[in-house]
Amino acid sequence: FEGEVPEGDLARRFAFWCESDRLKSIYRATPIADGSRKENTGEHSWHIMLYALVMADHAAPGVDIALAIKMLLLHDIVEVDAGDTPIHGAVTPEAVKAQEEAEIKAAERLFGLLPADQGAMFRAIWDEFEAAETPTAIYAKSIDRIQPVLHNLSDDGGSWRTYDVKLHQLDTRVGTKIAQGCPQLWPYIRAKCEPWFVARGAL
Amino acid sequence: FEGEVPEGDLARRFAFWCESDRLKSIYRATPIADGSRKENTGEHSWHIMLYALVMADHAAPGVDIALAIKMLLLHDIVEVDAGDTPIHGAVTPEAVKAQEEAEIKAAERLFGLLPADQGAMFRAIWDEFEAAETPTAIYAKSIDRIQPVLHNLSDDGGSWRTYDVKLHQLDTRVGTKIAQGCPQLWPYIRAKCEPWFVARGAL
Ligand SMILES: [Ca+2]
Repeated sequence: FEGEVPEGDLARRFAFWCESDRLKSIYRATPIADGSRKENTGEHSWHIMLYALVMADHAAPGVDIALAIKMLLLHDIVEVDAGDTPIHGAVTPEAVKAQEEAEIKAAERLFGLLPADQGAMFRAIWDEFEAAETPTAIYAKSIDRIQPVLHNLSDDGGSWRTYDVKLHQLDTRVGTKIAQGCPQLWPYIRAKCEPWFVARGAL
Repeated sequence: FEGEVPEGDLARRFAFWCESDRLKSIYRATPIADGSRKENTGEHSWHIMLYALVMADHAAPGVDIALAIKMLLLHDIVEVDAGDTPIHGAVTPEAVKAQEEAEIKAAERLFGLLPADQGAMFRAIWDEFEAAETPTAIYAKSIDRIQPVLHNLSDDGGSWRTYDVKLHQLDTRVGTKIAQGCPQLWPYIRAKCEPWFVARGAL
């Protein structure tokens, strides 16, 4: 596959798979659980789908778990073109806007590789996730926030150290999102995190 | 998490996520698509779920795509304990049997970390996949075979070179499985592979 949209239904699907494969070379700010290296977005996507399935009985009424899993399967594919934006990285409003535009362009190009009907269906799933308004999208967004917290915890702070994160920032950037989709889970996770922030005087 | 089954519903789920994370450090015989390194089982699992979603309209009647995706999400978790078995590696009947036993022990331990009801539900999904009898399991098994073929192709043979694979071996080890679950796809893929084997005189 060399960058053009190829002709033929199966050839287009092959091009999409091949391009998506590059997520395995996009590295995130958070480590894998043993702290030995940074996590890539491909394996991250698999892992959070596992979280979504395991937490299914904590989901609010109206959440479609199979759709949430599809959202998480597709949601980061735009990073092939647009890269990862660490949640605790410093950001200006201009940078946020530029990133949003880059992701929309990426969605157009990557889902545009697929046969038209299929590309439109995947794009609709991605749009629903990004809008974060339906119960399913709120649940999926919440799941996406849980896993990095646990990996940072198991790696003595992980990206919290990199970005000098305070507990109140974890609350606003991460906690509110987790609490929206998995209300019982956030107090449990927060109680696990608090001692690490207290010990560093990072409240 | 230190190896015991912890007490408490959420603590058990955390232990399962944490143990599953080790799939990201299990490397397979096949490369990622650009050939730059071997693929790990975590990112492989994500990628084949994408194949399963993209090929959904090629699935036989009776295939439950959401269940197929769950099967592929869970199917390789046993490799945390049992490791990966390259499909083209030399195997004796004794080695096959030992591997099957190791995977069953792994399924007991890993799904046993979860709350009992959930662990039993996941184990049932894994058992259905392994038995390869239902239309959904046949589809999922077929999907699991497609992706490594394409990666080997894009890496000038990949694990076919490592294991000196002939075209007739690809047919029997891989082709028959793909053809069962995605009948239209196998002729297309085989036609892509044939020139590589012909050029090496590896029929
Ligand atoms: Ca496998």
